[in-house]
Amino acid sequence: MTNQIQNPNVKSIQKLWGGNFSKLPSQKIIDFTSGWDVKLKKPYDERLIPYDIAVNLAHCKMLAKQGIISQTIAGKLIKGLNEIKKLYNQGKFKLDPAKEDAHTNVEAYLIEKYGIDIGGRLHTARSRNDQIACDMRLYLKDANNKIVQDLSKLIAVLSKLKVKHNKVQAPGFTHHRPAVLTTLGVIFDSFKQSVKRDQDRFKSWLKIYDKSPLGSVTGYGTSFNIDRKFTAKELGFAQAEENTLDPITNRGEDATALAFNIAMLMKHLSQLAQTLILWSMPQFNYARLPDQFCTGSSIMPHKKNPDVLEIIKAKTAMAFGALNSLLIINSSNLIGYNRDTQWTKYLIMDLIDETDPAISVISDLLVLIRINKKDLAIACQRDNLDITFKMEREIRQNGQSLREVKRKIEQTLTNN
Amino acid sequence: MTNQIQNPNVKSIQKLWGGNFSKLPSQKIIDFTSGWDVKLKKPYDERLIPYDIAVNLAHCKMLAKQGIISQTIAGKLIKGLNEIKKLYNQGKFKLDPAKEDAHTNVEAYLIEKYGIDIGGRLHTARSRNDQIACDMRLYLKDANNKIVQDLSKLIAVLSKLKVKHNKVQAPGFTHHRPAVLTTLGVIFDSFKQSVKRDQDRFKSWLKIYDKSPLGSVTGYGTSFNIDRKFTAKELGFAQAEENTLDPITNRGEDATALAFNIAMLMKHLSQLAQTLILWSMPQFNYARLPDQFCTGSSIMPHKKNPDVLEIIKAKTAMAFGALNSLLIINSSNLIGYNRDTQWTKYLIMDLIDETDPAISVISDLLVLIRINKKDLAIACQRDNLDITFKMEREIRQNGQSLREVKRKIEQTLTNN
Amino acid sequence: MTNQIQNPNVKSIQKLWGGNFSKLPSQKIIDFTSGWDVKLKKPYDERLIPYDIAVNLAHCKMLAKQGIISQTIAGKLIKGLNEIKKLYNQGKFKLDPAKEDAHTNVEAYLIEKYGIDIGGRLHTARSRNDQIACDMRLYLKDANNKIVQDLSKLIAVLSKLKVKHNKVQAPGFTHHRPAVLTTLGVIFDSFKQSVKRDQDRFKSWLKIYDKSPLGSVTGYGTSFNIDRKFTAKELGFAQAEENTLDPITNRGEDATALAFNIAMLMKHLSQLAQTLILWSMPQFNYARLPDQFCTGSSIMPHKKNPDVLEIIKAKTAMAFGALNSLLIINSSNLIGYNRDTQWTKYLIMDLIDETDPAISVISDLLVLIRINKKDLAIACQRDNLDITFKMEREIRQNGQSLREVKRKIEQTLTNN
Amino acid sequence: MTNQIQNPNVKSIQKLWGGNFSKLPSQKIIDFTSGWDVKLKKPYDERLIPYDIAVNLAHCKMLAKQGIISQTIAGKLIKGLNEIKKLYNQGKFKLDPAKEDAHTNVEAYLIEKYGIDIGGRLHTARSRNDQIACDMRLYLKDANNKIVQDLSKLIAVLSKLKVKHNKVQAPGFTHHRPAVLTTLGVIFDSFKQSVKRDQDRFKSWLKIYDKSPLGSVTGYGTSFNIDRKFTAKELGFAQAEENTLDPITNRGEDATALAFNIAMLMKHLSQLAQTLILWSMPQFNYARLPDQFCTGSSIMPHKKNPDVLEIIKAKTAMAFGALNSLLIINSSNLIGYNRDTQWTKYLIMDLIDETDPAISVISDLLVLIRINKKDLAIACQRDNLDITFKMEREIRQNGQSLREVKRKIEQTLTNN
Repeated sequence: MTNQIQNPNVKSIQKLWGGNFSKLPSQKIIDFTSGWDVKLKKPYDERLIPYDIAVNLAHCKMLAKQGIISQTIAGKLIKGLNEIKKLYNQGKFKLDPAKEDAHTNVEAYLIEKYGIDIGGRLHTARSRNDQIACDMRLYLKDANNKIVQDLSKLIAVLSKLKVKHNKVQAPGFTHHRPAVLTTLGVIFDSFKQSVKRDQDRFKSWLKIYDKSPLGSVTGYGTSFNIDRKFTAKELGFAQAEENTLDPITNRGEDATALAFNIAMLMKHLSQLAQTLILWSMPQFNYARLPDQFCTGSSIMPHKKNPDVLEIIKAKTAMAFGALNSLLIINSSNLIGYNRDTQWTKYLIMDLIDETDPAISVISDLLVLIRINKKDLAIACQRDNLDITFKMEREIRQNGQSLREVKRKIEQTLTNN
Repeated sequence: MTNQIQNPNVKSIQKLWGGNFSKLPSQKIIDFTSGWDVKLKKPYDERLIPYDIAVNLAHCKMLAKQGIISQTIAGKLIKGLNEIKKLYNQGKFKLDPAKEDAHTNVEAYLIEKYGIDIGGRLHTARSRNDQIACDMRLYLKDANNKIVQDLSKLIAVLSKLKVKHNKVQAPGFTHHRPAVLTTLGVIFDSFKQSVKRDQDRFKSWLKIYDKSPLGSVTGYGTSFNIDRKFTAKELGFAQAEENTLDPITNRGEDATALAFNIAMLMKHLSQLAQTLILWSMPQFNYARLPDQFCTGSSIMPHKKNPDVLEIIKAKTAMAFGALNSLLIINSSNLIGYNRDTQWTKYLIMDLIDETDPAISVISDLLVLIRINKKDLAIACQRDNLDITFKMEREIRQNGQSLREVKRKIEQTLTNN
Repeated sequence: MTNQIQNPNVKSIQKLWGGNFSKLPSQKIIDFTSGWDVKLKKPYDERLIPYDIAVNLAHCKMLAKQGIISQTIAGKLIKGLNEIKKLYNQGKFKLDPAKEDAHTNVEAYLIEKYGIDIGGRLHTARSRNDQIACDMRLYLKDANNKIVQDLSKLIAVLSKLKVKHNKVQAPGFTHHRPAVLTTLGVIFDSFKQSVKRDQDRFKSWLKIYDKSPLGSVTGYGTSFNIDRKFTAKELGFAQAEENTLDPITNRGEDATALAFNIAMLMKHLSQLAQTLILWSMPQFNYARLPDQFCTGSSIMPHKKNPDVLEIIKAKTAMAFGALNSLLIINSSNLIGYNRDTQWTKYLIMDLIDETDPAISVISDLLVLIRINKKDLAIACQRDNLDITFKMEREIRQNGQSLREVKRKIEQTLTNN
Repeated sequence: MTNQIQNPNVKSIQKLWGGNFSKLPSQKIIDFTSGWDVKLKKPYDERLIPYDIAVNLAHCKMLAKQGIISQTIAGKLIKGLNEIKKLYNQGKFKLDPAKEDAHTNVEAYLIEKYGIDIGGRLHTARSRNDQIACDMRLYLKDANNKIVQDLSKLIAVLSKLKVKHNKVQAPGFTHHRPAVLTTLGVIFDSFKQSVKRDQDRFKSWLKIYDKSPLGSVTGYGTSFNIDRKFTAKELGFAQAEENTLDPITNRGEDATALAFNIAMLMKHLSQLAQTLILWSMPQFNYARLPDQFCTGSSIMPHKKNPDVLEIIKAKTAMAFGALNSLLIINSSNLIGYNRDTQWTKYLIMDLIDETDPAISVISDLLVLIRINKKDLAIACQRDNLDITFKMEREIRQNGQSLREVKRKIEQTLTNN
């Protein structure tokens, strides 16, 4: 990105700041910080098209295998579904807003192209209830796997920082007050541990939800002789759901459990963000954020703001609210499918779209962060950071109890 | 909307149900129920363009009036802004995603068209901090006013229902159990009272937030001799904010207060929705929902589902989560502008987009609801609904205390 | 409070720190910080006893006035109720846990003492539904008034600080980064404005909820000829509720609306707390917290921690959660009383108990805070805090546009 | 419990209803429904005393083993701690509210009894930060295990119901509308599956958090040569925490993760509760709640209310709010201990106290629930519950596609 208005003859302007930056933010960072100000949000069901095609293909094969539809008809449906897949991959399968949802769009394509006698058979022994539950499960599995991978990168970055700065002394704070001497190794490792726990949580999510809801139909099964295990295997699930009603009633529970894992992860990222915001204030100057992760002001020439980190804090708040809504939806309803649960789709998709880039952006930022060893060394000399270890030494040496030694030392400090 | 697949020669299909409906849902209802499945969400700042233009115009006039820029330059800026307004009204002013936000898009237009010596002066004595705060205040005022108006309609509908069915007896429930006889008049009036209180809350929101933040600049004012009262008046505000820092630190507080009012309103609508869902179950059959407010099933031929009402319940959950996020954002930050607050914009805009149609849709539904007086009359004969008033009569007649009479009657009921 | 273990002959110890404190925290502060660790929570209905007596008295007078019970019986009931009041004021009326609630305890006292023919008449033409709604309304009115008063004190303290330090220069921050010069006057006034808005919100709460629910009975009225206006007036309400069902269905709405006001207030206090926590870090040293508002460490001799402020932040989080629960409870129930709403009582009482002292404690702390003018003056010389006003001066002097001048200055800053 | 006011000569009254009950609620149920109205809440740290003693004992043994204190002194401290344990078990160790917390109370006892030279050594190489983190971890492990056990009972009850009513036909609902025929077996199994998933979540909680935080000290370790693995083993943990800072910064994360598991469980119980509330309405009459799980009205003689189930719904809302607060607390703080986290203790303890009995109460209720097979059989004949399976049969027989057959059938239903 060039520096847009270097002279008064400038013809255009992309942003109202940046002249003081050694390196300007990448488009990825500008995208991250500009949020949804100037970007479209595509229809939510667009994310589901590839999953819906996969579910349709598996269902169709099963119908043929079980003799519920003929092989000939199945062949045509599969052909049609593969056409849709190709169109989608070419960016040419667009959702028609006149048709309610992705499922209707797909079925309508087949009916239009192959007639109702072919296309009208795809939905046999199935309902949108199990179809959407299955589409979502596949979508969430992918999102979950993506997060697990992204977290591996973040963990690696934190590990490297730990190793690199393992022995660098730093003030350890409690209650926002200098407490005792520690090292950057301890601090970066602490963040790493918390994020590793998060990663474990995402991994155990998969263990609980790696089951196919397909075949639940409306929640109450079907009189057709379907084979749920076949479709489960075809779709890469570890198994089929045991009960038909449970995954339909609890549509969105998988999303809610994922949202909790995201919320906890975001809390950890938010603590990391706040720590870096403070460390990079001139009052601390323990670390310096790379210019390309900052933004400037529309009016103040000197500003380099840690927007990326502030936004991570905001997204954390968003995650808490989304989790909350997901829990509330359908929480005191009669058993069986309830339409309320449709809104779980938007909540979790928004949440994934917001938080997924956060992991990658903070990893990138950490790679480029600059630690100011000089200022850290000075800070370590101040604020009685060594007094507790000195007290411990005195306890070892003079034989008095901790309470007595501590009190004695406290009284030497009374006058400040 | 025609019934799409009346015969096997059908060429297309818009939805997978509807053959059993006397009247199909209007596009408005299909839109309401299909949510964001197949619809784009436009860039959020698009909603702000008209407000940004208004704020720019007011600011520009003030700069000229105060002699901060010349009348000539002001004239050109105003000309440019009016061009943008015209383009916007014609749907031709599109946000360039390469430019961070609406404000940058507007300023860039002026610089491109009129050169930096003209366009580069618009932002004098101002920051994006006060600009966005002011844009949002105007946007929220309009949204608030719209809700107040829509509630007037809903209140009128509930009033009419009250008058129309004032004397129609109905079972009064407590704890989901038949309790005592009441009338539909009492029940519809109860809903009306709750919604009226909500409307009062929206009205008092305006009293608190009808103040212009423009002139706060970064939160700490400017050395230019600006006139905040002038811009406040120009923009239709009751007054200018007293303090510069408060509206910038508390960006999003206006949205949060509005979100609470929406949350409480949605809670009332959700109770109304649940009441109507139960009343229209065949187990009750107190009322019948109009077909055009129902949707069908992709597989079950007989279904007419109260999706509109279920979605209102889901949106209520969404409102609670959004309010929660709005409260959390920026809740333990250092005073001054923090970027975290940008995310309040998306939360409140989403919330307004979700809930605003809910008021109108439930009003429309109530207009067409059919009360089954016959079934209500039968229900009123059952379940000891008259026993409490009978007990009261006995108290008046036999001189015994309530506790004695009640206990006596209770014991006659022991065997069931 | 004496310094408990000044020498090894100490016999006891109250807390594990304090030797370095010039002044130890008062019991009020120790109470505030030790939370519920070592304190009992009394039965929640204890708070309601005085209100329940008042409601009973008003109801009893009304019954007599309307001829529903005789003057003689009313006289005895009033006598009994006044006995309970006296016992309660002497700390002698204790809730018997074998009796469900405060209402049962009161009625049981009257039946035991005066017989069922007297005591058993008190509940005529009334239900616990309207009784508890009315008790709570009175309790909440008092709590609301108390907060309004406490806020007047806080506002006065902030006003004084504003006046006292009006011209003291201080760094103004945005994004946790030094931005432009401001004054403590602007900052303290900003906090004052936000709290004043909160106070206005509490005042308008009263306007909406100053209505008596008594006479709603189960939600569906009574066949007795009661006089709701009389009891409303007797209890000091502005009026009686119009509808019987609304205040019973919406039991807890008054609490929820109050909880929102508290949540918003706590958010402002939390921002104030965080600002003071940072300002009093040695890295800033803009202000010093009074020792008697700090606590020490069980092991580190030098610590003086801002626990009071941290706890205010924690209570803010608690307020957000409580509001959330209050909103969710009963949010998709059938109209009419639902027992779910009983839990609103505990949530709001806890919230009031937690937050009410926070207002007073932070007011007291602010009175004793010490501003370090010397360090503030040094901080004002750093970090380019004057560069924006300098830029503005240059704009006024050289005739170039803001965009050009800003960019020029930015480029002089590129190297850092 | 006797029926208190069977005749006018009654001397006392325990509750204002019950004369119509075949069996009155047990004290456990009265306790459950009367909530905190007339019950004390003991000081929260009382729950921690046994854990604090265990932690002190382990720490003390480790100090002696490592030669940090002498065996003689360790012996006396252990003696003292065992005295406290005995007193506590006898209900005689009471927390002194003048001492900040449980830890201070325990240490003060040892200092008072054995002098500061003995008692004052217990806290060597330790801080309250790691002590409370360890106490809480032990407390939460026990609470978690208790829930796992209680859930085994609930799962067993649901299994039995499934087996017992496996073939009993019932209406299957979607959207609160009769959909297709199902069986009670499917429905009870669905509830069972959801609760089993919850139980798995509690089990995996243990895998993540079965680590001892002891030895973290302030978060930054100690200069004493402690043995963290020893204390971990002594206290029954699977291992010691790897990092010192992480468990102190993230104090309350274990509680938050547990709270999420509780929230999800409560959501499932709430859905079960609502289903039973509706099923037991006279409008459905599918099931009858046992009288001893109902409560009556203070004024309506015929009422038997499903309070137990309503309260479970309220507690679900409470759980969502508590989880929310737990997430928010400390979510954007600087790394290191922050006092804010103390409030996580009250939130999780309240949550456990509220929800733990809910599991047991709903299990007990389910054991005694009566299914009305006759009414279910009648309901199964109505509302076109068989139409979908009939349609499927027709598809198998006539060779037409689902879409064609469905549409045809729909049109036969148009007139209703």
